[in-house]
Amino acid sequence: MGDERENAHALWVFAHPRGDSLNATLRDAGVARLRADGWSVDVADLYAEGFDPVLVDEGGDDVRAEQCRLLAADLVVLQFPLWWYGPPAMLKGWIDRVFERGFAYDVPDPATGRNRKYGDGGLVGRRALAVVTAGDRADSISARGISGDVEDLFWPLLHGTFWYTGMEALAPHLITDVHGIDADGVRRVAGILAERLGTVGTEEPIPYLPMTEEYYDHSIALHPHVAAGLVGGSAHRHRS
Amino acid sequence: MGDERENAHALWVFAHPRGDSLNATLRDAGVARLRADGWSVDVADLYAEGFDPVLVDEGGDDVRAEQCRLLAADLVVLQFPLWWYGPPAMLKGWIDRVFERGFAYDVPDPATGRNRKYGDGGLVGRRALAVVTAGDRADSISARGISGDVEDLFWPLLHGTFWYTGMEALAPHLITDVHGIDADGVRRVAGILAERLGTVGTEEPIPYLPMTEEYYDHSIALHPHVAAGLVGGSAHRHRS
Repeated sequence: MGDERENAHALWVFAHPRGDSLNATLRDAGVARLRADGWSVDVADLYAEGFDPVLVDEGGDDVRAEQCRLLAADLVVLQFPLWWYGPPAMLKGWIDRVFERGFAYDVPDPATGRNRKYGDGGLVGRRALAVVTAGDRADSISARGISGDVEDLFWPLLHGTFWYTGMEALAPHLITDVHGIDADGVRRVAGILAERLGTVGTEEPIPYLPMTEEYYDHSIALHPHVAAGLVGGSAHRHRS
Repeated sequence: MGDERENAHALWVFAHPRGDSLNATLRDAGVARLRADGWSVDVADLYAEGFDPVLVDEGGDDVRAEQCRLLAADLVVLQFPLWWYGPPAMLKGWIDRVFERGFAYDVPDPATGRNRKYGDGGLVGRRALAVVTAGDRADSISARGISGDVEDLFWPLLHGTFWYTGMEALAPHLITDVHGIDADGVRRVAGILAERLGTVGTEEPIPYLPMTEEYYDHSIALHPHVAAGLVGGSAHRHRS
């Protein structure tokens, strides 16, 4: 795989309570594939490591340690079961605590005096992938599905977290219909995940717009001529 | 205030770490207004009560106690600061743990054999309001704002949690521009919240569609003739 993959390092953040779960099997398959492709991988098993997700005061030695893990990574994978159409509290709290102001966003840019965020920020240069299992049937999570469109559903994570902190957001890897999945099914979805990861270092990220005056009026809302007439998450993309 | 307000009971769930915060002031103002209007109010201060938001195994005495608080309520208010475009881990974990299968959703209906959810469920008969503070400027959270539309942003909570469990979802009460707010500003936003709460028992909820064959094909996706051509959260509403 190209030179850009040499020495690449991944942080795989895992947020499922059980080591005998489908999620654990998928994690093992995904990590094995990355290593086979030459990535070094640090697995952050938040439950097993006893991470405390409750933000009270900022900082803490455990937060510093997680920030170091993030800074070392070229690729950040967040793997979780979809609970109430979002990440489990364990993972949400990892973000709440670790992605601190001045570290992950609102990092002052000495050249411009601007606080860096949205396409720029403390985690710029990294790409981020969400790997998510859901009990929903596949068509439930679609543009007219009862659970909503996948990119709308993950907008807070994809745009509001990954892109906000400067990371390139990859299309989420969603595994549906996981209730009652049998051994053949597990092998099938593990294979699909491994195949996806084979190109994770080079695939095109979601082309979100940077928070600049070119696109956003006073950094707040799209100028009328940008994605004219469109609303919702997809309006915030480069058009080809 | 009509008869429907007599004996009405509210559960006010508060998820902010500090008792000297703007959020605490807003909570006190909101609770005072409800009580002045004849509501009895149970305040669940999740941080102060030391709730454990990490779901490992289902159940537990603390979860049963929270479920009893929910069942006693006609109105459920979830108040939180917007962190990473969602609720703090403390509140997310309260939902993860307390809204159990068989209690809040997938409650079997003996008459039909159907598992009740989306407009039906264990919490039917209640209304739910999110009261949320955000540092964003108001226009950032809008249809073309960089943070996204308010109802899209809260879709997992409004449709995927409130409506999923049978509760009527009220339009979220969003308080923006909270960084550096002064004493006059605090009084102003507390007054606006109190005024909103004055009609919280009677205002029209978001008219989400029930998960029935009338609207959803096999309970999964909108029939082509329902909200024809529309996508996103707003497609899932009754049209007048």
